Amino acid sequence: MNRALKPSPEEKHQHADIPRKTVYRLSLYLRCLELIVANSGKIVSSAALASVACVQPAQLRRDLAYCGPLGKRGTGYDVLFLRNRLEEILGRASLQPVILVGAGNLGQALLSYKGFAKEGFEIVAAFDLRPQRIKAGKIPVCDMHALQPIVRKQAIRMAILCVPGSAAQQVAEQLFKAGIHAILNFSTAVLHLPETIAVNNVNLAIELENLSYFTR
Amino acid sequence: MNRALKPSPEEKHQHADIPRKTVYRLSLYLRCLELIVANSGKIVSSAALASVACVQPAQLRRDLAYCGPLGKRGTGYDVLFLRNRLEEILGRASLQPVILVGAGNLGQALLSYKGFAKEGFEIVAAFDLRPQRIKAGKIPVCDMHALQPIVRKQAIRMAILCVPGSAAQQVAEQLFKAGIHAILNFSTAVLHLPETIAVNNVNLAIELENLSYFTR
Repeated sequence: MNRALKPSPEEKHQHADIPRKTVYRLSLYLRCLELIVANSGKIVSSAALASVACVQPAQLRRDLAYCGPLGKRGTGYDVLFLRNRLEEILGRASLQPVILVGAGNLGQALLSYKGFAKEGFEIVAAFDLRPQRIKAGKIPVCDMHALQPIVRKQAIRMAILCVPGSAAQQVAEQLFKAGIHAILNFSTAVLHLPETIAVNNVNLAIELENLSYFTR
Repeated sequence: MNRALKPSPEEKHQHADIPRKTVYRLSLYLRCLELIVANSGKIVSSAALASVACVQPAQLRRDLAYCGPLGKRGTGYDVLFLRNRLEEILGRASLQPVILVGAGNLGQALLSYKGFAKEGFEIVAAFDLRPQRIKAGKIPVCDMHALQPIVRKQAIRMAILCVPGSAAQQVAEQLFKAGIHAILNFSTAVLHLPETIAVNNVNLAIELENLSYFTR
């Protein structure tokens, strides 16, 4: 979301091969290819795929250059081959375990959202200061004290952070210490964390505020 | 969110005075200032505010230059004055009416989220193909046929789009025709719309996929 507010992925993740913005676009191309597969398409030109994805063809070709050899020049991409290659790169073959921390309004809303599982992510546990207040269906809601043992035991690397802004920094540090490598931050706080942990910010209020400015 | 995938705000919104990325950062500065107000701070230096917001001081000064005169050089910003000025620019004085379209899993989750109201946005109505299936508390859930009359009558300009990706383009065109000026797009689809309508994309699965890549 407010991507512009953070250090660039190149700065933060020098160990990774593909820049973060390119990884975003690969996700997008994958979804476009899935649509083309659903419509029984076999071959797609870079111009057509770029047009569906709303990017420049040159951008698309630069992005796909990160994916290794993809076919002969001038004949278009083999849709199934490219889809499988992107799935492999983006690690969608296996279900990724994720934890959710802070099961207030938004946290509970996300716990009830079934879209994550469909995309290959499984919320395996939720954590809250007052776990007894939460109804989360089949997902166990645990006390914050259980965070570190569960993260370590299940080798979980990703967390969704939905605590109030005032608590976010402290909880994010706990997540880091527990061994979490990546945080999807729904809180309003700007997190100050070591560069080895990846943070993506999703601030729904800021998105609306931004749009609202442009409606006037 | 996947901001990199869209035309730059400068291209899309030539009528607006402030670039979209700057508007994002103004929202962020506003939240930092609210925190400083809560801590009884009166004056803040650009270096300190930039540090809290995780941006470079030069970036902060460039952004605030869009906000008109803000005080004497070298004495820091008056916290309350700057907060009020940002609230005024971002239009937070009044409650903005918003509609939500597509009350499936995620739509219902967002309807139950109380965070929007706290930030100055009120979901005044929801729309769905099968409105009778939805429980949305106090928010009326209407048939899609009622969309245009309600949007026009209440002069609503903003919509949250939560329909499945396969329906998103068609529904977005309906929103445009009804008079909506800005869409917060939670669907997986890339929307192709006239440049006069602003679109921000929030794709939770893509955010997780992106983070997941960087945890490996």
